[in-house]
Amino acid sequence: MRILLDRDSSQPMYLQIQDRLQALIQSGSLLPGERLPSIRTLAKTLQVNKLTVIEAYDRLLAQGLIHARQGSGYFVDPVGIPAPSKPSGFEPAQDVVLCETQSNRPFAIYARSIQAKQQPGVIDLSCALPQNPPNDLARIVRRVSNDSDSIFSYDAIEGQSRLRHQIANLVLQLGLEASADEILIVNGAMQGLSLAMRHHLQPGDWVVVESPTFFSTQALLEQLGCRLIGIPMDREGMNLDLLERYLQSHRPKLIYTISSLHNPTGLTTHISHRQQLLHLAAQYHCPILEDNAYEALHFGSAPPPLKALDSEGLVTYVGTFSKTLSPGLRVGYLVVPPSQYPALLEQRYLTDIHTASLPQAVVSEYLAHGHYRRHLQQVRAQLLQNRNQMLCALETHFPEEARWTIPEGGMYLWVQLPEHYRFQMQKLAQQARAADVLVLEGSAFFPDGVGYPALRLSFANVVPEMIEVGVARVGSLLKTRHESVQFT
Amino acid sequence: MRILLDRDSSQPMYLQIQDRLQALIQSGSLLPGERLPSIRTLAKTLQVNKLTVIEAYDRLLAQGLIHARQGSGYFVDPVGIPAPSKPSGFEPAQDVVLCETQSNRPFAIYARSIQAKQQPGVIDLSCALPQNPPNDLARIVRRVSNDSDSIFSYDAIEGQSRLRHQIANLVLQLGLEASADEILIVNGAMQGLSLAMRHHLQPGDWVVVESPTFFSTQALLEQLGCRLIGIPMDREGMNLDLLERYLQSHRPKLIYTISSLHNPTGLTTHISHRQQLLHLAAQYHCPILEDNAYEALHFGSAPPPLKALDSEGLVTYVGTFSKTLSPGLRVGYLVVPPSQYPALLEQRYLTDIHTASLPQAVVSEYLAHGHYRRHLQQVRAQLLQNRNQMLCALETHFPEEARWTIPEGGMYLWVQLPEHYRFQMQKLAQQARAADVLVLEGSAFFPDGVGYPALRLSFANVVPEMIEVGVARVGSLLKTRHESVQFT
Repeated sequence: MRILLDRDSSQPMYLQIQDRLQALIQSGSLLPGERLPSIRTLAKTLQVNKLTVIEAYDRLLAQGLIHARQGSGYFVDPVGIPAPSKPSGFEPAQDVVLCETQSNRPFAIYARSIQAKQQPGVIDLSCALPQNPPNDLARIVRRVSNDSDSIFSYDAIEGQSRLRHQIANLVLQLGLEASADEILIVNGAMQGLSLAMRHHLQPGDWVVVESPTFFSTQALLEQLGCRLIGIPMDREGMNLDLLERYLQSHRPKLIYTISSLHNPTGLTTHISHRQQLLHLAAQYHCPILEDNAYEALHFGSAPPPLKALDSEGLVTYVGTFSKTLSPGLRVGYLVVPPSQYPALLEQRYLTDIHTASLPQAVVSEYLAHGHYRRHLQQVRAQLLQNRNQMLCALETHFPEEARWTIPEGGMYLWVQLPEHYRFQMQKLAQQARAADVLVLEGSAFFPDGVGYPALRLSFANVVPEMIEVGVARVGSLLKTRHESVQFT
Repeated sequence: MRILLDRDSSQPMYLQIQDRLQALIQSGSLLPGERLPSIRTLAKTLQVNKLTVIEAYDRLLAQGLIHARQGSGYFVDPVGIPAPSKPSGFEPAQDVVLCETQSNRPFAIYARSIQAKQQPGVIDLSCALPQNPPNDLARIVRRVSNDSDSIFSYDAIEGQSRLRHQIANLVLQLGLEASADEILIVNGAMQGLSLAMRHHLQPGDWVVVESPTFFSTQALLEQLGCRLIGIPMDREGMNLDLLERYLQSHRPKLIYTISSLHNPTGLTTHISHRQQLLHLAAQYHCPILEDNAYEALHFGSAPPPLKALDSEGLVTYVGTFSKTLSPGLRVGYLVVPPSQYPALLEQRYLTDIHTASLPQAVVSEYLAHGHYRRHLQQVRAQLLQNRNQMLCALETHFPEEARWTIPEGGMYLWVQLPEHYRFQMQKLAQQARAADVLVLEGSAFFPDGVGYPALRLSFANVVPEMIEVGVARVGSLLKTRHESVQFT
C-alpha cells in the first residue's frame, strides 16, 4: 500500500491520508476485511505524527469505511453497505386515538429483552440496548475510585457541579444553550420523564402523545391517571393540523414529544415543524416535554432541539448517557425552565435524594478524560452500517406492500404493514420468537394498544450478517401468513 | 504486658485474651492512648493463631475499649467514657396532632448539612451523616471495575440476584426471615419509602405517623396529598392507646413507624410493643410501613423487626446501606409482602427502571469480601463513645429541667425542653449557628411544624471533645435565654 503525501499542499496531512485511504477502499485496492497498517507503522512510514494518523483513522471510522477490533488494529469494513436509494414509503392513515385507560405492561417487554441477552443464537431485533460500553470505561472507574469524597458521600440533590457544566457544553453542541443551573442530573431518562410528568400533571388530565410513541411513557401516564390523545405521526412528525384541533377541544396539560430519532419510528422533525409545534404550544399555553434520549446518535446533524427554540420557558428537555455510554450507570439529565427548577428539586429530594455519586463521577471523568467524541463516531458508524444492512434486507425479503421509515440515526426503524395483517401480528411475533428472532409488535406503541399493523425493528444489537438473517426469517413468515390469509 | 492463658480451660482462647486485656485496661495497667502489640506479635508471643487475636481485638473494638488507626495498629481508647447512670427523664405531653396540610422543607435542611460539611470549625450536631466510608471500599470499587457485564448494562428491575441473597442473610441476623424474591433493591431508604407510599396511598388518605417523626417522610406524605395523624411518642414508643382511638375514628390507610432507633428520638420499642402494634394493625386492616434505616447501628441487639413478627403480610420493611457503608452509593432495599411485589416492581420500572448496577456491585462485593462485620463493630463502638460523651455533656451543661432520651444505638438523641422555651427555639438555633454549632429544632419533626420545644442532637459526625464543646455552647445559650425570659 503506497500513500503519497504532498507536504507543500494547503490540505492538512490527516485529510490527505483520509482521502487516499478512502480512494484505496472505494477502488477495491484495499479489500473488505483487510487489515490497515498500525498507527505506529503508518506514522513511521509517512514520517508524520501518530496523532495525524489517529485523526485520519477516526474520520474513516466515522464514515463507516473501517472498523477497529480490540487489540488487533483497524480493518476495512467487511460490508461497505451503501444506503438504498429507494425513498421511504411510510404514509400511515391519520387516525387520532383517544384513550382514557390502557394496559401496557412495558416492564414485561423490558424483562424479556434482558433475558434474551443471555440466550445464545437469538437474533434480537426488538430492543434498543446500546452496544458494549467503551473499552476505557473500566479504567475510568478505577481512576475515580480513590476520590472517596466525591463517590461515597451524600451529594447535591441537583447533581455534581462538574458534570452539570460538562452537560451544558454537550447540549450546546446540539444548539441548546443552557446554564449548569438549569440542569438536573437524574437516574436516566426514565426518571427525568417521571419527575417532569409528576410535576406537570394531575389525575384526569389530557396529555398529547405521538401515536405511536414510547410504550413506557404511556404506562407512566396511565399510572398517573392521565388520559391520552394520540396524535398520529406522518413522515414529517406529529400531524400538526390534528394537534391544533385537539389542543382546542381538549385543552391538554402537556405535549410529550420525541423530536429527534423518534421512538419507535426513528423520524427526526424538520426545524419548521419544531417552530410550528412551539407556536401552537405557546398559543394554547401547553407545556412541552421533549424526550431526546437518542440525541447523540444522529448520523448527520439534527436541527436544534425544541428547547433551544423556546423563548417562553415552555419546554422541559430530557437527555441521557444510557444510549451512548452505559445504561447500567443510570445517569441522565433534565434541562428545566428556571421557574420550575425549585419544585423539581424538591420533588427529586423526596423521590430518592440524588443520583448515586459514583456513576456521576464515572460519567464526568469519562467526559473529561475519555474519548467520548471518538466513541460516538464509532457507534454512529456502526449503526449506519447496520441500518443500511437492514434497509437492504427489507427490500429483499419483506412483502412489497410493506412501508418503512429511513431514520437518520438511532437504533431502529418502523415498518408499516398492510391492513390485512391486523389480527396476525401477535402470532407473527410468536412465530418469529420460535425461529429465534425477537421483534416488537407495533401495537405496544399505540395508546390504545392497537393502532395499525407494524413492527419496530432494532438494528443496534446485532452484527450486519445476522440482521440479514433475522429480517429474512421475519419476511418469510410475513409472506407465508399473507398467502395463507389470501387462500383462507 | 503479660497475658496468661489457660490452655486447659473450656473458655475459648479469644475470650481469655479479651478478658485479660479488658482487665488490664480497666485496672489502668494499660493507659489510654497506649499501643497494643500488633496482631502478629501477640499471636507469636501467646503461640496462638492470628485469627484468635483478631477475634479478641474485634470484640474489644466493639466494646469501645480500643480503637484502630489505619496503618498504625491498635490503641487503648483515649476516653473510656462510661454511660451515665442517670435514667432518661423523657416524658412529653401526649398530644395527638391532626394535620391536613403542612409545609416542611426538608431539602433545605439537607442542603444546609451538605454545605456545613465544607465549613471548617463548624460543630455539626444537626445531621446524621455516617462516618467516613470503610477504608477498603475504594479497593472494592477497583475490584468490580473489570466486570463490565455486571456494572454497565441494563439490569434486573428488582436488583442484582447476588445482592438480594446477601441482604436476605443480613436481615436474617436481625431475626427477619425473607426470601431473596421478596427483596427489591432501591436507591436508598428514601426511594423505598416513596415507592411504598405511592403504592398504598391516595390523595386525601389519613396516615398515622409518630409525633415527632422523620421530616422527609412528612414532606413526602404532604406531596402525595395525604393527611397526617401524629400519634405522640412516649418512652416506650408510639402511644398505643391513642393509636387505637384514631384507627377507629379515622380509618387511616397506613401506619408509618420507625421501630428501632427512631428518628428523631433514638428510641427502640420493646417486643411486646411491637406485638401490640401489629395486633392493632391487623384488627383495623391497616398496613404498616416499617422504616429501619438505622438497623445495623444498635449497640446491643434490638428485638426482631415488626416485619419478622408479621404473619398476615401487613408490613413492608425498608433498610439501607446509607448509614453504614456509604450514602452516596444510594443502595437500600424493601422487603415486600409477596402479594404486593409485582405492583411495586412495575412502579419501580416506571420510576427509573433499576438501581445503578455499579453501586449494587460495589455493595455486593463488599459484603462478600470486605470486612462488614468488623466495620460495623468499629462504627458502633465509636458511636457508643460519642453518645456517652454527649450524655455527660448534657448533664453538665444543659438546664436542669431539660429531659432527653438515652438511645441504645444510632446517631442522635432527643432533648425535650421546658414549655417556656416554646417561642425561642428558632432564635436559639440561629444563635447556635452564629456560635458555629449546628442543631436541629424539634419543630421540624412534628407534623404540625410546632410540637413541644425540643432539639435533635446528633453525635455521629463530631469527635468526643467537640461534642463536649458544642453541647456546652448550646447549654450556655439555653441558660442565658431562660434567665432573660424570667427577668423580662
